[in-house]
Amino acid sequence: MFKVNDNYLKLPGSYLFSTIGRKVREYKESNPDKEVISLGIGDVTQPLAPSIIKSIHEATDEMADGQTFKGYAPDLGYEFLRSAISINDYKSRGVDIALDEIFVSDGAKSDSGNIQEIFSVDNKIAVCDPVYPVYIDANAMAGRTGDFNADTSLWSNVIYMPCTAENGFAPELPSETPDIIYLCFPNNPTGATISKDQLQKWVDYANSVKAVIIYDAAYEAYISEANIAHTIYECEGAKTCAIELKSFSKNAGFTGTRLGYTVIPKELKDENGVMLNSLWARRHGTKFNGAPYIIQRAGEAVYSEAGKRETKAQIDYYMNNAKIIRDGLADIGYTVFGGVNAPYIWLKTPEGVSSWQFFDLLLDRASVVGTPGCGFGPSGEGYFRLTAFGTTENTIKALGRIKNI
Amino acid sequence: MFKVNDNYLKLPGSYLFSTIGRKVREYKESNPDKEVISLGIGDVTQPLAPSIIKSIHEATDEMADGQTFKGYAPDLGYEFLRSAISINDYKSRGVDIALDEIFVSDGAKSDSGNIQEIFSVDNKIAVCDPVYPVYIDANAMAGRTGDFNADTSLWSNVIYMPCTAENGFAPELPSETPDIIYLCFPNNPTGATISKDQLQKWVDYANSVKAVIIYDAAYEAYISEANIAHTIYECEGAKTCAIELKSFSKNAGFTGTRLGYTVIPKELKDENGVMLNSLWARRHGTKFNGAPYIIQRAGEAVYSEAGKRETKAQIDYYMNNAKIIRDGLADIGYTVFGGVNAPYIWLKTPEGVSSWQFFDLLLDRASVVGTPGCGFGPSGEGYFRLTAFGTTENTIKALGRIKNI
Repeated sequence: MFKVNDNYLKLPGSYLFSTIGRKVREYKESNPDKEVISLGIGDVTQPLAPSIIKSIHEATDEMADGQTFKGYAPDLGYEFLRSAISINDYKSRGVDIALDEIFVSDGAKSDSGNIQEIFSVDNKIAVCDPVYPVYIDANAMAGRTGDFNADTSLWSNVIYMPCTAENGFAPELPSETPDIIYLCFPNNPTGATISKDQLQKWVDYANSVKAVIIYDAAYEAYISEANIAHTIYECEGAKTCAIELKSFSKNAGFTGTRLGYTVIPKELKDENGVMLNSLWARRHGTKFNGAPYIIQRAGEAVYSEAGKRETKAQIDYYMNNAKIIRDGLADIGYTVFGGVNAPYIWLKTPEGVSSWQFFDLLLDRASVVGTPGCGFGPSGEGYFRLTAFGTTENTIKALGRIKNI
Repeated sequence: MFKVNDNYLKLPGSYLFSTIGRKVREYKESNPDKEVISLGIGDVTQPLAPSIIKSIHEATDEMADGQTFKGYAPDLGYEFLRSAISINDYKSRGVDIALDEIFVSDGAKSDSGNIQEIFSVDNKIAVCDPVYPVYIDANAMAGRTGDFNADTSLWSNVIYMPCTAENGFAPELPSETPDIIYLCFPNNPTGATISKDQLQKWVDYANSVKAVIIYDAAYEAYISEANIAHTIYECEGAKTCAIELKSFSKNAGFTGTRLGYTVIPKELKDENGVMLNSLWARRHGTKFNGAPYIIQRAGEAVYSEAGKRETKAQIDYYMNNAKIIRDGLADIGYTVFGGVNAPYIWLKTPEGVSSWQFFDLLLDRASVVGTPGCGFGPSGEGYFRLTAFGTTENTIKALGRIKNI
C-alpha cells in the first residue's frame, strides 16, 4: 500500500501567493466594477525588451529549419549562454567562474526549491525571518524542518534569524550553528541589503563552521549604492562555502519566460572531498532536461549591448516607481524601508493593524493588492510589502488611493 | 558542518546518455573525418511544425507589448492549454479529466524525476527491466532503492520486472507487492506495448494491492495498432490508482522546446483520504514556476487542426524510418522488436556480443551511435536500441553502413 510523503501534510495552509490570489479573485468577483491594482506578487509588467524579442524570433526561425533545429540541450545549458554569464556577471567583477560551474535552469524558484536535495536530510538550515517562503517550504517537504507550530508560525528545527527595523533588516550570526544558511540580498521581502564587508563576515563565518551559504542574488540588478557585492564571490573565500542563485525574472522581465542559473564552484566540497558541483550536475542531468533553446537565446540577448541598455532602462523605470511609493508613503506618515537597492518597499503597518488586516484594508478601501509581511515569517508581522513592478501610471494611481484611505 | 545527500554517492557511474555523449565526443575527436550518425538518444530531428512556429512568433509578439505581456503563469499552467489537453487527449477517448487534474510542466523528464517526491521514502518501487533510467535514479537520489550492486547492476530495494523476448517484453505481475509501479507504454527502450486488456490487469492489480501506477505515456502518439490504450484512464478504475505522464517531445518534436504534463485524478487518495492531486499541486506551486508562456502557446498549437495534421506527418515520417530500420535489420538476419507502435527498434545483439561491445562496434565500424540495452537494466544486456528519430536520409545511410559491418 502506497504511503504519501507525510512532510507535505505538515505544511501550513497553502502557499502565500496562492492565498493572496484566492482573496483577490474573490474580491474581484464581489466587486466586478473595481479596478484592482496589484503591487503584490513580485511580477513584472514591462514587456520583454526589443533585442530579446528579436532574439526569440530568430531562434524560433532556427527551430523551423531542419538544418538549424535544436533538440535536447547540453545538460548544463548552452555554452553561448554560460559564456555570456561568466563574462558579464563574473569576470566583469573580477571573479573567475568556469563554464562548468554554471548550471542554466528554468528559473531561480526551481533552483531555490531543488538545491536542498543534494544535502542530507539531517542538515539544519538557517533562514532570515521574514524570508521568501520557498526556502523553508522546500526543506519542509524534504523533512528537514521538524514540526510546524501554528501558534508561533515557526518550525521546530529551523534556525530563524530575525530581520527587523531594530537591526536594519540585517541578520546577525546565529547563536546555534547551522549547516546551510539561506541569504538573499538585495532582500526579498524587506528590500534591504548589507554591505560587502558585512557579507564577508558571513562568508568567513560559513567557512569557519563549514556551513554552506545558499545565496539568492535574484535582485542584484537593482543595486544602486556602492560597497554592495553584486555576487557573493566578490568576497574572499566564498568559493569554498557559497552557492549562488540568479534569475532573469527581475533584471530582464522573464517571470513568464523562465530562465535562471546556479553557480557551484568546484572548490565547494564536503569533509570527504565530495564536490557539490558534481552532485548538482547529477541532479541537473537526471531530473531536468534544460531550458528551451529559444529561451536560452533570449537569455543571451540580455547580455548584448542593446539588451543591457534596454533592461537597464526597465530597471530604472521600476526604481522610479520604487521612489514614488517610498516617498509617497513617507509623505503621509508611513515608516518605509527598502526601495533603494531593491524593487520592494517594506512598510510598517499602522499601530495595532496586523499584516493581514492591512492587506484586507488596502484591498477593500483602495483595491490595491500588497503582500502581508507575516506571510514571510513571524518577524514580518506588522510589516507589508509593496512592489515597484507595476506600471508607473498604476503606481501613481495606487498611491493616490492609499493616501485617501 | 554540512553533509551531502549520501544517496547520490550510491549512484553508479554517470547517467547513461552522458556516457554515450562522452564516447561519441572522443570518437569524433579521434576521427574528425568521419560523419557520425546518431540513432542513439531519443532526440528528434524534424523541425517544429509551421503552425507551432507561427504560434511561438505570435506569442513572442504578445510578450513585446505591455498590453499583452505575460508574467507568472497560473500554477497548473494556462487554461487554454489544459483545456486543449483535456478535450483532445482525454475527452476524445471517452475520458473525463478535469482541468485541475492536469499539471503543465517543462517536460516528462522533470515530472518522472520529481513525482516520487510526493511519496514517502519507505515506499517500494517496481520497475520494468530494462527501463528508462530516470525512474530508478530519481528514487535512488531520494533513498528509496537500497544499495546498488555493481556486479548485478541491481538495487537491493527495487522490484524488477524483467521484460525480454521470452515474455514479449510485457512485464508479469510481481510476486512481491510494490507500492509504486512504473509502467511505460509504448515502451522506451523496447518499443513494445501491451494490449488494453493487459493494461486493465495492471490497473486491477494496483487497485487490489493499493499501489500507484506511474504511467509514462510519452510515446502514445506512435500507437498504430488497435486495442492499445492511448491513456491509462481508458481502463476501468485507473483514476483511483494511476498518475499519467505525457510529453510534447516525441509527438511534436519538443525535445529542445520543453513541455509536458502530468495528470493526477482527484479520486487517487491514500488510505487516509489524502489526495495525491493536492500534494502535487503543492509541489508544483512551491518548487516550479510554470513553463514559459510562449511554449505553452506552442503546445496549444499542437492541438490545432493544422498542428495535428503537421505533427501526424512527422510521426508518419519517423515511423517510416522505423520500418526502414526494422526491415533492414531483419533482412540481414538480426532479430528485431518494436518499431510498430513506437519509434524504437530493439534488436538482439549477435551471439556472444555484449550491448556495450555492440555499441563500440557500431561506432567504430559504421560511425553509427545507438544505445546499449544494458544501460537500461540488466535484462537489457544482449539488446541494443536504435531510434527512428533521425532523418530518413541518415537512417538509410546508417542501415547501409550496418549491412557492411
